[in-house]
Amino acid sequence: MMFEALRKYINQYTSSEISEGAFDTVSKSFTPKHLLKRQFLLQAGDVCKYTAFIVKGAMRQYSLVNGVENIVYFGIENWWMSDRESFTMLTPSQFNIDALEDCDLLLITHDKVQLLKESVPQWNKMAAQMDHRHSIAMQKRIHDAISLTAEDRFLNLIKSNPEFMQRFPQNMIASYLGITPESLSRIRKKLAKK
Amino acid sequence: MMFEALRKYINQYTSSEISEGAFDTVSKSFTPKHLLKRQFLLQAGDVCKYTAFIVKGAMRQYSLVNGVENIVYFGIENWWMSDRESFTMLTPSQFNIDALEDCDLLLITHDKVQLLKESVPQWNKMAAQMDHRHSIAMQKRIHDAISLTAEDRFLNLIKSNPEFMQRFPQNMIASYLGITPESLSRIRKKLAKK
Repeated sequence: MMFEALRKYINQYTSSEISEGAFDTVSKSFTPKHLLKRQFLLQAGDVCKYTAFIVKGAMRQYSLVNGVENIVYFGIENWWMSDRESFTMLTPSQFNIDALEDCDLLLITHDKVQLLKESVPQWNKMAAQMDHRHSIAMQKRIHDAISLTAEDRFLNLIKSNPEFMQRFPQNMIASYLGITPESLSRIRKKLAKK
Repeated sequence: MMFEALRKYINQYTSSEISEGAFDTVSKSFTPKHLLKRQFLLQAGDVCKYTAFIVKGAMRQYSLVNGVENIVYFGIENWWMSDRESFTMLTPSQFNIDALEDCDLLLITHDKVQLLKESVPQWNKMAAQMDHRHSIAMQKRIHDAISLTAEDRFLNLIKSNPEFMQRFPQNMIASYLGITPESLSRIRKKLAKK
């Protein structure tokens, strides 16, 4: 059942049906993992050994600088979580990745990702799509950060990911936007009056 | 001569010597282009048809929102410039790319990039490295934007790209950092006193 979510994902992003044989190779490359709320997939200082496909639940990637949490990414169902730098270069990560809800995950190592790229063309196609979408999302985030006010960034987030508002506490939304919880509270009060 | 810079780049990022035959295939896929200061490689609304390898000169990618320029990237010698989203999806770009100095460029289309990936393994290796480094640089920029003060972002930029300070005017540095020229001026005065 956990693997069905992955099959659906691959079919969706390649606009085709993956064969049973190919999907068998793919699914054998993953290990299922259940993570309880507050448990870690990655702790800063460790190498990020796995990329996780989120079947169920929610996660975040964040750094801890002078006691302040800086949330770089949230992840929910059908998203992938990993520190790409640490995962690819096998260097210690500066980030933590933990579960914000109980999570059902499918884990894969870097070696297995490379093997699948070479042996399953449909995986390769999906991985290219994934990298591409990730790259576009990051560019958008950089552009928003340098060009928009905190209020407009908040409004954009409500529009692009309304589910975040229900699932994540306000202090985490503030961290993701790069503002203090107090600033976010002021922005929300201002918007409520409009 | 222009192509020698590209050969050196490929050898450097693959830690090997590309064969004459393979480099011949690579160099035939590029078109040399001279761009004068203030000329455009890409104008917002157009599709980004080319990725440019900068042999000489400096460029920037920026959006224009309500008359304000937001600089997402600078590019100098040995960097690649393109709006990746528009280049890959062939959709109209929201960005401009122009020359900040007279530039010697090598241009390549998306079709040719794909062909090289399939036919020249060393190109494929270099492209993967390039994507990976780009992805790490973007993640760092996002993390800096949400976690650092404007002063620390400025200090980081001086450290990572000291050449930017000589080559680009202060108002552009401010735009790249996502702050007003007045804020950058205040930060510089404060730092000068230390």
